[in-house]
Amino acid sequence: MKISARNTIPGTITAIAKGPSTATVKIDVGNGLTVTSTITADAAADLGLKEGDTVTAIIKASDVLIGK
Amino acid sequence: MKISARNTIPGTITAIAKGPSTATVKIDVGNGLTVTSTITADAAADLGLKEGDTVTAIIKASDVLIGK
Amino acid sequence: MKISARNTIPGTITAIAKGPSTATVKIDVGNGLTVTSTITADAAADLGLKEGDTVTAIIKASDVLIGK
Amino acid sequence: MKISARNTIPGTITAIAKGPSTATVKIDVGNGLTVTSTITADAAADLGLKEGDTVTAIIKASDVLIGK
Amino acid sequence: MKISARNTIPGTITAIAKGPSTATVKIDVGNGLTVTSTITADAAADLGLKEGDTVTAIIKASDVLIGK
Amino acid sequence: MKISARNTIPGTITAIAKGPSTATVKIDVGNGLTVTSTITADAAADLGLKEGDTVTAIIKASDVLIGK
Repeated sequence: MKISARNTIPGTITAIAKGPSTATVKIDVGNGLTVTSTITADAAADLGLKEGDTVTAIIKASDVLIGK
Repeated sequence: MKISARNTIPGTITAIAKGPSTATVKIDVGNGLTVTSTITADAAADLGLKEGDTVTAIIKASDVLIGK
Repeated sequence: MKISARNTIPGTITAIAKGPSTATVKIDVGNGLTVTSTITADAAADLGLKEGDTVTAIIKASDVLIGK
Repeated sequence: MKISARNTIPGTITAIAKGPSTATVKIDVGNGLTVTSTITADAAADLGLKEGDTVTAIIKASDVLIGK
Repeated sequence: MKISARNTIPGTITAIAKGPSTATVKIDVGNGLTVTSTITADAAADLGLKEGDTVTAIIKASDVLIGK
Repeated sequence: MKISARNTIPGTITAIAKGPSTATVKIDVGNGLTVTSTITADAAADLGLKEGDTVTAIIKASDVLIGK
């Protein structure tokens, strides 16, 4: 499935912390860069996410702010 | 100013396309990875964004979806 | 690819209006219900979206407000 | 009150799970389609949400991604 | 209709600029504070928005970042 | 750092409630107006947020819905 979000960044899960309703996932996308994602705990279970998984970080262009 | 968003990724503007109301900005964050941001044209003008600028891509953790 | 968003709704594109930077897409998800999506014009071109396409409307649970 | 969001979908709450800070609400919008919303626990209490309630699922068009 | 968003701020439209697909609306919420909203041009027409209108700026708590 | 979000509202933290994964922050922005923000608990700790802090509420224009 191709997706309309303009940022689809492949990476590897390096850490996943599961709270009562949300899960915080750290994704190594290379070059020392880690992307942090918070998703619902339900989603983390549904996708069976675990450390070492190859995943895609998906980010809409309109959700990227710029600081200068 | 420190910001609550969990993803603050430094990079360099490689392209900026200004439409009537939005601007699409391409940010090289290293390792061949480009992050795309769409902001208001007003914001692009206000920040004086141009190619070669060093900027920060700011993304809330809750705006990062995961695909597997 | 399975995705962390909790709402993945299949439907058929019934209309697509392309502006200079955004595209507005109407998706019939059945039962007379139409979901409206605005994506970047680039995304619409990249996915080759056109009327009659079978697509999935993807919505994060945290992006669904409730009115009562 | 009319709202700028382009998706205002009427439905019935079929389930509501309240966590320490968020509530996950399942809304039957007909035709076997269920929309999932996560809102703050405070909002769920403020609106007095409960199973069987008739509510409106409100989604900005720009928060609807498309997969194809 | 009561809404799950935790920020519902009354104000008056002081300016509205309509582009091909989006409209930028300035809302005076008092005390010299102006809130800027970008909505679809369709929404601006649908709500019949014009200068002087009394409106509500609706913002989810999770869409408010904090800088310090 | 200047930021692309069109709403950057200075205020003072009047309350902060920390949950297992999120923190809810109340910001007095003057004139009796309080803005509510939910951020990750990690962010609240990282910024060392506490009552009385002077902070900026940062909101993208596209995250402001309008009701009329």
